[in-house]
Amino acid sequence: MKSYRKELWFQTKTRRAYLNITPEVQEALRESGVKEGLVLVNAMHITASVFINDDERGLHADFDDWLEKLAPHEPVSRYRHNNGEDNADGHLKRTIMGREVVVAVTEGRLDFGPWEQIFYGEFDGRRRKRVLVKVIGE
Amino acid sequence: MKSYRKELWFQTKTRRAYLNITPEVQEALRESGVKEGLVLVNAMHITASVFINDDERGLHADFDDWLEKLAPHEPVSRYRHNNGEDNADGHLKRTIMGREVVVAVTEGRLDFGPWEQIFYGEFDGRRRKRVLVKVIGE
Amino acid sequence: MKSYRKELWFQTKTRRAYLNITPEVQEALRESGVKEGLVLVNAMHITASVFINDDERGLHADFDDWLEKLAPHEPVSRYRHNNGEDNADGHLKRTIMGREVVVAVTEGRLDFGPWEQIFYGEFDGRRRKRVLVKVIGE
Repeated sequence: MKSYRKELWFQTKTRRAYLNITPEVQEALRESGVKEGLVLVNAMHITASVFINDDERGLHADFDDWLEKLAPHEPVSRYRHNNGEDNADGHLKRTIMGREVVVAVTEGRLDFGPWEQIFYGEFDGRRRKRVLVKVIGE
Repeated sequence: MKSYRKELWFQTKTRRAYLNITPEVQEALRESGVKEGLVLVNAMHITASVFINDDERGLHADFDDWLEKLAPHEPVSRYRHNNGEDNADGHLKRTIMGREVVVAVTEGRLDFGPWEQIFYGEFDGRRRKRVLVKVIGE
Repeated sequence: MKSYRKELWFQTKTRRAYLNITPEVQEALRESGVKEGLVLVNAMHITASVFINDDERGLHADFDDWLEKLAPHEPVSRYRHNNGEDNADGHLKRTIMGREVVVAVTEGRLDFGPWEQIFYGEFDGRRRKRVLVKVIGE
């Protein structure tokens, strides 16, 4: 069994952002040399997400509005976590979007349906944060 | 290490539906010959879900009401993704329910608690869509 | 390829509870002898969750308030599943929080970012329930 580990680093200019990281994950998979197996891609921070959906700008705006309605940023005082922090909403938003994805690797490729793309969802940005890519297989 | 891949195809008659796919996943596992490992089961489409819960009709009706309240289908114009599309709510509903499950394989069986069953959740149906089953192990 | 399986048992005193189970998962990983691979940690019951977030009491109170707002326990009659049951809300709350996490194993350790901790989320407690830890790798 082979295994391979790579960190991807991001720093967004805005508090919230949605980045297509599929090319970076594909590159890590190529480097791994794994042809059949699984790849785990997870946020290493607890106010960020890795998820799979469509690379369509309108949809990302819909996600952003919807998350802000389900778990508003303000007033920050509504959250007990915000005792010196202001990112409680980011913990909740990331919970909706998910921490991680597991993707099948088949014949050396991400085994995706027609529109699947991997995104980094940032909910407390403007600082350097990491995503972990771990590949196992043969 | 062994690996095995199988696609399951579904076409629901209604826009939204919840189908118990546990027997199909068990059959794929049997075909794989894997006795110890992991099985990934994921929707290959971004308005569908694979999730684990109870096979109880009242609960599925509760899920459906709840998802429609959290991310209503109409008015379709409320979503920016619906520019020629009408399925933005399906992308959001699938996000709540999840894209994928990873299940342990032990002694050749899905290693489940007493009520765990695997479901395909459809949120933009009435056309042919796929689920991927990928088994790895020995 | 090695594989290892362990059940963790919990009985909470309250209907809802959030328990840090990271030490128990680390111990299972140590017992497995796996140095490189993946560990799956999942609730074996459908009104419980395994998730990764911060070990901060205020945040757990925020999660609890938020889940109760998104899927209230009462009136129990609002849910069609509650026909002899009173735990439909627990099925919905667990869906938000997630059934499982998959964590990379690197050099024999849980490959975590700075604040990642694994929690058992209970939404219908006061009875004995299980979490499954399955480790695969080398």
